[in-house]
Amino acid sequence: VEKKAAAESKSFAVNMFKGQIATAQVFPFPKALNDEQEQFLRELVGPVSKFFEEVNDPAKNDSLEKVEDHTMEGLKEMGAFGLQVPADLGGLGLSNTQYARLVEIVGAHDLGVGITLGAHQSIGFKGILLFGNKAQKEKYLPKLASGEHIAAFCLTEPASGSDAASIKTTAVLSPCGKFYTMNGSKIWISNGGIAEIFTVFAKTPMKDPKTGETTDKITAFIVERSFGGVTSGPPEKKMGIKASNTAEVYFDDVRVPADCVLGEVGGGFKVAMNILNNGRFGMAAALSGTMKSVIIKAVDHAANRTQFGNKIHTYGAIQEKIARMTMLQYVTEVRAPSSCFRRVDLRIFRIFEGTNDILRLFVALNGFQNAGNHLKSLQKALKNPIGNAGLIAGEITKRAKRFFFTISFFLSFGSELMERFDPSDEQFVLKRVADCAIDLYAMVVVLSRASRSLGQGHPSAQHEKMLCDTWCVEAYDRVVRDVKLLQSAQSKQLFNNMRSISAAVVENRGVVSPHPLGF
Amino acid sequence: VEKKAAAESKSFAVNMFKGQIATAQVFPFPKALNDEQEQFLRELVGPVSKFFEEVNDPAKNDSLEKVEDHTMEGLKEMGAFGLQVPADLGGLGLSNTQYARLVEIVGAHDLGVGITLGAHQSIGFKGILLFGNKAQKEKYLPKLASGEHIAAFCLTEPASGSDAASIKTTAVLSPCGKFYTMNGSKIWISNGGIAEIFTVFAKTPMKDPKTGETTDKITAFIVERSFGGVTSGPPEKKMGIKASNTAEVYFDDVRVPADCVLGEVGGGFKVAMNILNNGRFGMAAALSGTMKSVIIKAVDHAANRTQFGNKIHTYGAIQEKIARMTMLQYVTEVRAPSSCFRRVDLRIFRIFEGTNDILRLFVALNGFQNAGNHLKSLQKALKNPIGNAGLIAGEITKRAKRFFFTISFFLSFGSELMERFDPSDEQFVLKRVADCAIDLYAMVVVLSRASRSLGQGHPSAQHEKMLCDTWCVEAYDRVVRDVKLLQSAQSKQLFNNMRSISAAVVENRGVVSPHPLGF
Repeated sequence: VEKKAAAESKSFAVNMFKGQIATAQVFPFPKALNDEQEQFLRELVGPVSKFFEEVNDPAKNDSLEKVEDHTMEGLKEMGAFGLQVPADLGGLGLSNTQYARLVEIVGAHDLGVGITLGAHQSIGFKGILLFGNKAQKEKYLPKLASGEHIAAFCLTEPASGSDAASIKTTAVLSPCGKFYTMNGSKIWISNGGIAEIFTVFAKTPMKDPKTGETTDKITAFIVERSFGGVTSGPPEKKMGIKASNTAEVYFDDVRVPADCVLGEVGGGFKVAMNILNNGRFGMAAALSGTMKSVIIKAVDHAANRTQFGNKIHTYGAIQEKIARMTMLQYVTEVRAPSSCFRRVDLRIFRIFEGTNDILRLFVALNGFQNAGNHLKSLQKALKNPIGNAGLIAGEITKRAKRFFFTISFFLSFGSELMERFDPSDEQFVLKRVADCAIDLYAMVVVLSRASRSLGQGHPSAQHEKMLCDTWCVEAYDRVVRDVKLLQSAQSKQLFNNMRSISAAVVENRGVVSPHPLGF
Repeated sequence: VEKKAAAESKSFAVNMFKGQIATAQVFPFPKALNDEQEQFLRELVGPVSKFFEEVNDPAKNDSLEKVEDHTMEGLKEMGAFGLQVPADLGGLGLSNTQYARLVEIVGAHDLGVGITLGAHQSIGFKGILLFGNKAQKEKYLPKLASGEHIAAFCLTEPASGSDAASIKTTAVLSPCGKFYTMNGSKIWISNGGIAEIFTVFAKTPMKDPKTGETTDKITAFIVERSFGGVTSGPPEKKMGIKASNTAEVYFDDVRVPADCVLGEVGGGFKVAMNILNNGRFGMAAALSGTMKSVIIKAVDHAANRTQFGNKIHTYGAIQEKIARMTMLQYVTEVRAPSSCFRRVDLRIFRIFEGTNDILRLFVALNGFQNAGNHLKSLQKALKNPIGNAGLIAGEITKRAKRFFFTISFFLSFGSELMERFDPSDEQFVLKRVADCAIDLYAMVVVLSRASRSLGQGHPSAQHEKMLCDTWCVEAYDRVVRDVKLLQSAQSKQLFNNMRSISAAVVENRGVVSPHPLGF
């Protein structure tokens, strides 16, 4: 059930660019779990919550700059290190939705623990789950699932961040073909100082069978610390998530057996992107939990703090803050299963597993790439945009219409944009296109979620309708504003100005304008 | 010269609401220093910069969570603790503009030191400078100016933050009339743990000579730690400006001599607001310096970091960030002398000396209050808005016209708003009105600054014109958008929705909508 839902919501954004509003993908709101999965998850939510309320001490972890030993043991006993590992290999065998629900609880209490667990299973050994052969799975997953071994994901290097393909770590096959010799260093590795098992990406020289030329291609490897030659630096000093270990990892002539290649030799870039794209929803889930608990704290303060003779929640300035926090959480919670975007006031989460800037480009470029061949179907698709409109609760039709109007507006503009696209404006344009696409996607999932509540007569349905209404009104304004800007001659001038301002400041290595006093 | 400029730019915002665009206040760009002041300042800038580059160690201060002893001594020797104290009382006798220029240097290097110095002289003993009598000035200022004594400003209490008038600390006059007995506690006091001299605000019971009734009124006091009964808590653990000491301060039956009353008995609220309003520009100056040095770091990275085969400053997404940082710094630098608003990504500076929320209300309410009697002059004033337009350089006329168009638009709306104002929407409306006023003020000072550079043929004039153009285009859009929203029926609905959403979440003590999974 869930895989289908995830795949569908993933392709929704792409389809949106094609002019296909595949309402069946999001309407009605998908039921992501079967009865058995739901029952199993229900049995886990209680104990996990209790553990984080009673055993885990986030302030202590933060001050120690590590997760307390007894907490780590408790997490291992609960199975928290192998949530998605199949049961026959020692894990809990959870689906993405089940996993996300538990991660929300972690995120609500302690993001330091969240990153420790996430770096381990969401990326650290996810490659073994996704691409490992039978022998690799059987060899590594049981000890990883039990937490006896901690895993880390080693992609980033000093000169290679967003541009993952530019890594310099090398792995050279021995003449006998039995092992690779690995050399290089990785930075900002979560769990880098405590992991035993590493998923490492390195360049391997490969001979093209046709031309005979040798080129470097990325290959993924499973590397054990016990291989020797693997060392790690001291924990980085950080401003947040201090309980999470972050360290450099060095590989000096590490002898990696050839059967530790993960996936295909030379296919490592695909492995890396698949791991990241598969794992990213976990972060949105954790932050949805964080937002929920932050709202509880904020509301508690607003309800109890008196200034100027009234509780401060009675003031409009505070009400607007609470309403905005609530809308953002509502959107994030429903977007989480396939989210690739983070709006939260915690800097590192705008950078982890792909910066927001790169993810924006990813959304827009993917959309346009796929849209290229499909623009002709645009008009046709728009003629019957609400294919199964019956599924949208009557009360919300007004908003839904606004959504479909917005998407038509966006799409008709999209085809125009494709024609008069100025390459030098590329990222200025793509950033705004991505923002629109993200807003449109958020609108549709919120419409779907609120529709279900209205249809089922939830006690919170009218409140959800209000969240949905308010979100859609503002999202619509944002999309229209961006599109109008991009359509205007002014945008060209604005982007030119920004390019020139930046060039002058870069040239001058700092601000160009002299101080108003002249010195 | 400078006092006039400061007073004029202060009243500009108020006049704006009256419909009086007093261009003479900002055009031409004011010359804030006479030749002697300029020369003196020039002689200080070099050594102060050198001290911060060579002696002060911000990372060390941060890790020690205090300013290093030898740095404190060096600062004292330079006169940094008495920048605005008159020379005959041991200070440097600097004007606000001279002070701001030096504070920029501090802010560029170490905000922890900046807050230590600022809490001392910008608010800590500013009351003695502004309201002290001759004896008080002579007794306290020399040792404060030399740094032998550190000062702190004690207003905030556990139950009294933005609502300063609600403080509970009491000071009761003895029957003999010679001393007050002070009891209470203050929180979040910068320098609280290291100060010897405190400016303390307390409630004093006062008998109305006419009615005979006793009411509590706020009085300001100079309190010495040596009086006895003054204690302070441990340094608060903070996420930033760690070198700055922040502590609670307790007053237990402190015997304060009656001649330590600062200003008039019962006139303490006025004293407090005057200190804060007089000191606030220092923060904007410090942050202008911070922004400048952050831009240098960011640009250095952008110019040297290669990803995807190019230096990253060649990418539009990065260019837009650099351009926006540069525009914000340009605006902040010119607004600093009278700024009351902070846009910087350092949370505490949105809260210090009045939260941004309160300052927004302050801007809007002050404007409306003063506007009440003057709306009739609106039409008249708008007939000749550019009184001395000749002073605006020809090249920038287009932007200036846009500014005057925007301000007309804003003002004509203002009079309409006054009539149909719904009290329950008050803060939702005022927030947006304040944002508009702040944007308009920023537009006009940027126009003035860029005009001067163009008029004088500065090498950076065309670059500044571009900063000005780009800023004004976007600021204009923001103002028009806010005004249109406030004029629309939709805004009423939007504010209603936000009020209802907030009420439900407060009532429920957390988000109301059940999890999409149902549990």
